[in-house]
Amino acid sequence: MLRKFLPKEERFFELLEQQTEAIREGLSLFDELLKHPDRRHDLSVQIKTAENNADKVAHQIYHLLDNTFVTPFDREDIQLLVNRMDDVLDCVEKASARMDIYNIGSVTDAVRSMVKVLQESFDNLSKAIRMLRNRKNRKEVTQICIEVNRLENAGDMILRDALRELFKEASDPIHIIKFKEIYESLERATDRCEDVANVIETILIKNA
Amino acid sequence: MLRKFLPKEERFFELLEQQTEAIREGLSLFDELLKHPDRRHDLSVQIKTAENNADKVAHQIYHLLDNTFVTPFDREDIQLLVNRMDDVLDCVEKASARMDIYNIGSVTDAVRSMVKVLQESFDNLSKAIRMLRNRKNRKEVTQICIEVNRLENAGDMILRDALRELFKEASDPIHIIKFKEIYESLERATDRCEDVANVIETILIKNA
Amino acid sequence: MLRKFLPKEERFFELLEQQTEAIREGLSLFDELLKHPDRRHDLSVQIKTAENNADKVAHQIYHLLDNTFVTPFDREDIQLLVNRMDDVLDCVEKASARMDIYNIGSVTDAVRSMVKVLQESFDNLSKAIRMLRNRKNRKEVTQICIEVNRLENAGDMILRDALRELFKEASDPIHIIKFKEIYESLERATDRCEDVANVIETILIKNA
Repeated sequence: MLRKFLPKEERFFELLEQQTEAIREGLSLFDELLKHPDRRHDLSVQIKTAENNADKVAHQIYHLLDNTFVTPFDREDIQLLVNRMDDVLDCVEKASARMDIYNIGSVTDAVRSMVKVLQESFDNLSKAIRMLRNRKNRKEVTQICIEVNRLENAGDMILRDALRELFKEASDPIHIIKFKEIYESLERATDRCEDVANVIETILIKNA
Repeated sequence: MLRKFLPKEERFFELLEQQTEAIREGLSLFDELLKHPDRRHDLSVQIKTAENNADKVAHQIYHLLDNTFVTPFDREDIQLLVNRMDDVLDCVEKASARMDIYNIGSVTDAVRSMVKVLQESFDNLSKAIRMLRNRKNRKEVTQICIEVNRLENAGDMILRDALRELFKEASDPIHIIKFKEIYESLERATDRCEDVANVIETILIKNA
Repeated sequence: MLRKFLPKEERFFELLEQQTEAIREGLSLFDELLKHPDRRHDLSVQIKTAENNADKVAHQIYHLLDNTFVTPFDREDIQLLVNRMDDVLDCVEKASARMDIYNIGSVTDAVRSMVKVLQESFDNLSKAIRMLRNRKNRKEVTQICIEVNRLENAGDMILRDALRELFKEASDPIHIIKFKEIYESLERATDRCEDVANVIETILIKNA
């Protein structure tokens, strides 16, 4: 009941943090799926639920935007930030759904490396978003955005090595189609993290 | 000749409605194509023409933006709305072109279901856009946006079932490549409808 | 040392031109790769370097935006312009990386035609960006944007013919997967050029 006395600005940050937590939950369920591919159906359903939860928080943020005159940053940027974060879990959920649909019983090291990079990238973003509360963190937030850009590059390199391997080793085109899509969905998730970092940089620019 | 006495605001709505009509025309030609896959070449050419017509209306709207000081909503949002609507027919046109290019002589139930969802989604959007003229329709427009979100989800579920079936039944990878692309183009069209709904929600937020 | 006396507005144009030059360098390296597919590894590494160079200029522009009060156009549009231009070389770099990864020893006429269209399209954009310095060029810039739209259409037609040929001739699905991806990356680069043209049109609209 204390919440309603909080300034609305504070409420935005709370919700953004809630959204990042919901997304981190989804990412950690995906990590679980990699360890137990036999439970891929159940876990992909749980990831879908995590995605829906993250989505609900996103809509709470839109609703708050709808009912707030003064927002901590430009409302368009908040909306873009929320959208792009949503995209991260969308891509991961897509990858998990494909693992279920395509009956993928065991994953490659490349999938594991990509998820590691993705989690590191998103952890960085969560930290950056928490730090947006304070203008003094400007330099550090910029550093985090640079790191997220570096991780996107690392993710892309893993994808390329994975594709090289896939096309060299596999003779079954259907196997290639399946894994190529899973690799690309995960790499796109890392791309979307970079997009989030770019929105954060825009916010820093506008609030310089 | 009466037109030039209409207020410019009215002219925007007229053009937006003209654009939605051109897109609906394209969607209904695609529906026709599903019923007569043997006429796929002719019909895909007609869909391309419908896409060009929709595009011309889009450019009329840009031109009007270019020459109007006061617009009914932020000009950037009008531009985004027009772009995203354009994308819907682009995706459908792509699907029809692929059916022609890949010589698809008969379609699956999944394609038919996806098009049904897509038409329902776009009909909702057309209605929402007509209702934007009046601020009193705010609640109802919001409801329509929620419905378009639900339909996007339904479209995604159909895609997933279709992929499961495709990979289970088909042994020909080239057949898989073709149908996967057609399914995904149609699902993307439903995604773009959701994007249109999101722009409409942004417009509602800004004009609260 | 004279540079610091230049008005900041001028500095934006200088950097935008530097970015277009870096991208043109990447495109011309890709053209070189088509002539010498046996040097695909080295050349794709050089294209990656060109992409990094273009990226560095992009970040200089963001930094300048960060430190400038009055910008020649809305800062959001400058950022979008820079992003979309960056995307052009990203797509081309992806195509060159795939040629290396997939061991593509010789290319088709369709690849060559697509690159020709792409270079023509980007040359037009470079010219349009140089002309943005002067409001008097408005009409001519609009004409260039229309031309870039036409070229995107031409690129799409080449893609379609190439796919028709690919699926008619090839019996090896892995070959189809590889070439389909290269064709689509190049066509997407032409699409991104159209996006750049659209941002330029937005800039013209806002500065009418």
